[in-house]
Amino acid sequence: MTAQSLVNGKASGQISILDRGLLYGDGVFETIAVRERRIFLWHEHMQRLHSACEVLRFKFPGVTLLQNEVAKLLGTVKQNVTLRITLTRGVGKRGYRPVQNAEPNRIISVHEWLHSPQNYSKNGIHLRCCDMRLANSVLAGLKHLNRLEQVLAQAEWQAEDGIQEGLMLDHNNHVIEGTMTNVFMVKDEVLMTPDLSYAGVDGIMRRCIMNVARSHAIKTQVSKLSLDDIRHADEVFVTNSVIGIWPVQQFEEFTWPVPGEMTTRIMQLIENKQTRSGIVI
Amino acid sequence: MTAQSLVNGKASGQISILDRGLLYGDGVFETIAVRERRIFLWHEHMQRLHSACEVLRFKFPGVTLLQNEVAKLLGTVKQNVTLRITLTRGVGKRGYRPVQNAEPNRIISVHEWLHSPQNYSKNGIHLRCCDMRLANSVLAGLKHLNRLEQVLAQAEWQAEDGIQEGLMLDHNNHVIEGTMTNVFMVKDEVLMTPDLSYAGVDGIMRRCIMNVARSHAIKTQVSKLSLDDIRHADEVFVTNSVIGIWPVQQFEEFTWPVPGEMTTRIMQLIENKQTRSGIVI
Repeated sequence: MTAQSLVNGKASGQISILDRGLLYGDGVFETIAVRERRIFLWHEHMQRLHSACEVLRFKFPGVTLLQNEVAKLLGTVKQNVTLRITLTRGVGKRGYRPVQNAEPNRIISVHEWLHSPQNYSKNGIHLRCCDMRLANSVLAGLKHLNRLEQVLAQAEWQAEDGIQEGLMLDHNNHVIEGTMTNVFMVKDEVLMTPDLSYAGVDGIMRRCIMNVARSHAIKTQVSKLSLDDIRHADEVFVTNSVIGIWPVQQFEEFTWPVPGEMTTRIMQLIENKQTRSGIVI
Repeated sequence: MTAQSLVNGKASGQISILDRGLLYGDGVFETIAVRERRIFLWHEHMQRLHSACEVLRFKFPGVTLLQNEVAKLLGTVKQNVTLRITLTRGVGKRGYRPVQNAEPNRIISVHEWLHSPQNYSKNGIHLRCCDMRLANSVLAGLKHLNRLEQVLAQAEWQAEDGIQEGLMLDHNNHVIEGTMTNVFMVKDEVLMTPDLSYAGVDGIMRRCIMNVARSHAIKTQVSKLSLDDIRHADEVFVTNSVIGIWPVQQFEEFTWPVPGEMTTRIMQLIENKQTRSGIVI
């Protein structure tokens, strides 16, 4: 790799201290898996990024430009990597007020693929429940740069504790998501995932799983879920674009054989999709 | 001025794109007024910054170090300026999880003092009510870097609209603060300001006004306030460390003669304090 990151298309690892992404968290990002030079769900990531720019009301730089920059950054790299694409509202005037027609700053960085020797996809993970609650927000769904809740939620336990993910609830005790994942559960052969209308990140892998499930006649349901629903689920798993699917093997005193039947089926459907879709660069 | 900003004590206007302040809004900041080389309420700002670091669980770099860096940055500059001091959790490992004992990045920048030709302190301002609601959060009180709510609230109107500040409510219709200010109202000679236990920034000027009022036997009350309380107040004003106090002249169809009696008294008490306290560098 010749450069680890591009800022507005140029090799750089630095950004202005006046960038509104730093000043106010005024921006959005995507974290994307690249395996064997295939960018999985590229168009879905771009679509979400575009929508997020519209909500925050700044210009989306366009898929072609971002794709060219990703290709430039990746060069001829062959190993699997993770991409982060961040768009901020750039440098503006002093104060919270955004200038109109701001030119966003584009920050694209490439990161080592994290191999987990424990093979969580196969062996499952231990899940805990976080004390930190997610606030209801009109920004629900967006993967914006205001992520202090997730940071403090993950600070509640240590990597050495043998726990891989934490469930986050909202102030009404509804399960919303994991700190870095979306959550799914299976009950009586229905695939269920929490409603994210008021909080949470609407993950690309979550969308992909729901679409794949529906197109294979698996019953799906987006609804309010409680901790008791999770405890008494037939199967539980967490997902994101980089890890894919991790079955939950233990939550509190509840344990599940992993991967469960439905989880296995979904994992296969996603694996099939993964080797065929996205773009190759 | 030889430098406009220091990053970790060195003249620089750039920060790593891997700084957690940019990646996640993982940091806190202070905006501080410097008039005739006097840094008003310096110790109060430092105290709040220190407490905020404790909540976010990263090391506070110490008042002496920050004071030395501010002195270095200001050099021999004589004009009034605004300082911004940002502390982020620095560059860490990938992912939300904060490393323990992280060394924060210190970003100190100096900005032109904004002279408002309209003299809002004397003539008052027009206030509006924002659609954007503040989410309840355990991070209430902190001036952290997750400020998208304020950005989008200010985007609701234009500077040309003749409106200077917007009121923000929480999801329970309680008035919390302005987009960049705290809010006070006077009713029957009692000075009232919203309870910030669940949302809002606990402003240094707010604290200062409450202390000054109490020490001058002015009755004060921190309580839940509604829009109707504001509408039927005897006086309303907004405050922050840089603007000081702006009386509200109009909100919806309600108008007040400005500055009101209590507002005038508080302004004088703060002005007296301002010329005596803080530190001179």
